[in-house]
Amino acid sequence: MTNPAYVAVDWGTSSFRLWLIGKDGSVLGESRSDEGMTTAAKTGFAAVLAAHLAKVSAPENVPVIVCGMAGAKQGWVEAGYIDVPTSLSAILTGAVSVPGQDRDVRILPGLAQRDKAMPDVMRGEETQLLGALGPESKGSQAVCMPGTHSKWVHVRDGHVTGFSSFMTGELFEAISKHTILAHAVAGADQMPADTAAFEAAVKAAFERPAMATNLFFTARSGQLLHGLTAAGAQAKISGTLIGMEIAGGLSDAGSAVNISLVASGRLQGLYETAFKTLSLSYTTIDADTAVRGGLAAAAKAIWPN
Amino acid sequence: MTNPAYVAVDWGTSSFRLWLIGKDGSVLGESRSDEGMTTAAKTGFAAVLAAHLAKVSAPENVPVIVCGMAGAKQGWVEAGYIDVPTSLSAILTGAVSVPGQDRDVRILPGLAQRDKAMPDVMRGEETQLLGALGPESKGSQAVCMPGTHSKWVHVRDGHVTGFSSFMTGELFEAISKHTILAHAVAGADQMPADTAAFEAAVKAAFERPAMATNLFFTARSGQLLHGLTAAGAQAKISGTLIGMEIAGGLSDAGSAVNISLVASGRLQGLYETAFKTLSLSYTTIDADTAVRGGLAAAAKAIWPN
Repeated sequence: MTNPAYVAVDWGTSSFRLWLIGKDGSVLGESRSDEGMTTAAKTGFAAVLAAHLAKVSAPENVPVIVCGMAGAKQGWVEAGYIDVPTSLSAILTGAVSVPGQDRDVRILPGLAQRDKAMPDVMRGEETQLLGALGPESKGSQAVCMPGTHSKWVHVRDGHVTGFSSFMTGELFEAISKHTILAHAVAGADQMPADTAAFEAAVKAAFERPAMATNLFFTARSGQLLHGLTAAGAQAKISGTLIGMEIAGGLSDAGSAVNISLVASGRLQGLYETAFKTLSLSYTTIDADTAVRGGLAAAAKAIWPN
Repeated sequence: MTNPAYVAVDWGTSSFRLWLIGKDGSVLGESRSDEGMTTAAKTGFAAVLAAHLAKVSAPENVPVIVCGMAGAKQGWVEAGYIDVPTSLSAILTGAVSVPGQDRDVRILPGLAQRDKAMPDVMRGEETQLLGALGPESKGSQAVCMPGTHSKWVHVRDGHVTGFSSFMTGELFEAISKHTILAHAVAGADQMPADTAAFEAAVKAAFERPAMATNLFFTARSGQLLHGLTAAGAQAKISGTLIGMEIAGGLSDAGSAVNISLVASGRLQGLYETAFKTLSLSYTTIDADTAVRGGLAAAAKAIWPN
């Protein structure tokens, strides 16, 4: 077995993922939990990290590279932002050291778009992006990174020219739990997904995004008047949000732009279905592989030997 | 003083409003509370009504005309729906009697749009609409009725041709309380409103509704990067929702359509500001006067003497 080279950590708002990586790049161990920034800010970042390092038996001298919300102002150590437009590789030079640790721990910066009308920030996705495209990508791409706050990033020849966050995942939760539609979707998770309703909603919202909050309401009126199921109501909400997001994400891009989808699991399936419904061609890159790739590039830049 | 002729009740999901009306049409007494359908379904509709009738000292023989959610399936007595397209005056013939009451109590029906792709329902707004326009209105109008679930109704020569509900008010609550933006708007209610941020958001969402969930996010990123205030963040959320609603409400209408705004209080001010920002001309009709007018027309049709 190869020797451990470094530990890679993706530390988000609500999730923690750690990998022990060998000198040949292979994954030697993995540890995940829901101890994201919100939890760790209360229980202590160093303690959370130490527990996961112990789980994968990381040797004492092995350094740690971190991306994500651990570098936010409310996080462990603020890692600042690199302003866009920027080269993708610029984030490699912006890592900050966490002081007072037994081992070398570095946190990568996020990206900021200081545009007055469209201010935006990301933390973690920039590392995923670097891993997904590599520092030397060619041509123009729209990169879709679905999640709580989905990111659409415009990349040209290895440079991030701009990006937009869409509150798709968080709005799905808020609408499904904290509006009248909570009744409409009750029980949906125990039913098979209604793909037809999802596709129809994606199409309707993509074509007429101004009708989005009306489309949400049809999840209720469709039940009152047409016997729509809970799964159908849930599909309408999620399809509407995703259709609107895709329309927004592509609104700054030419119609011939290449779409890269960086996702895995359930979200990958939903977005692939949405792109197919809209006859948009896309390439999927696994999100986990992408973030490990970005962290590997950072580790190699910081600890080259 | 004129003798009481009837009692008019607007019984919504979360509010109850009752007026004692004289034979000359004047308001002899008024009683309001938050005992809407949701509350009354637990405590009993008859008891809630009796308490408010006692407050305005309504004589025993005076009949009661009711509109709103009291006529829903989960309400007091189901009053059904009149299907659109329909004449506005059709609702006058659809009232149902509440059985087992000491006095004559009738509940007006709602409107249903059974369109497969755009199903919709309303209860209460149809009565407001009748009061606002009268049964014999001429020409084409888009009627905007803001609220928890705002309604946009298309009326031509006294006929409702179609309508759409937008979840504007409810989404404002859900986004402000149950997403990351709750932090961004904390304290906003104690600050003066940020009209400039509201107007900019109305314009941005009206012009690019696909960016709505991104515009919400700028309430947060604007604070991180540009020192946006809590009032500014709140104005961005409300302006985005209202701008998107107006774009959606007008998307089926010609650009030369007459807009009637049926509103009062705070919502009236917000929507008037939004219409002015978008250079859209409109006529405002007071919402309270409108609903009393519709209930008066119904009382006159049911009890003509």
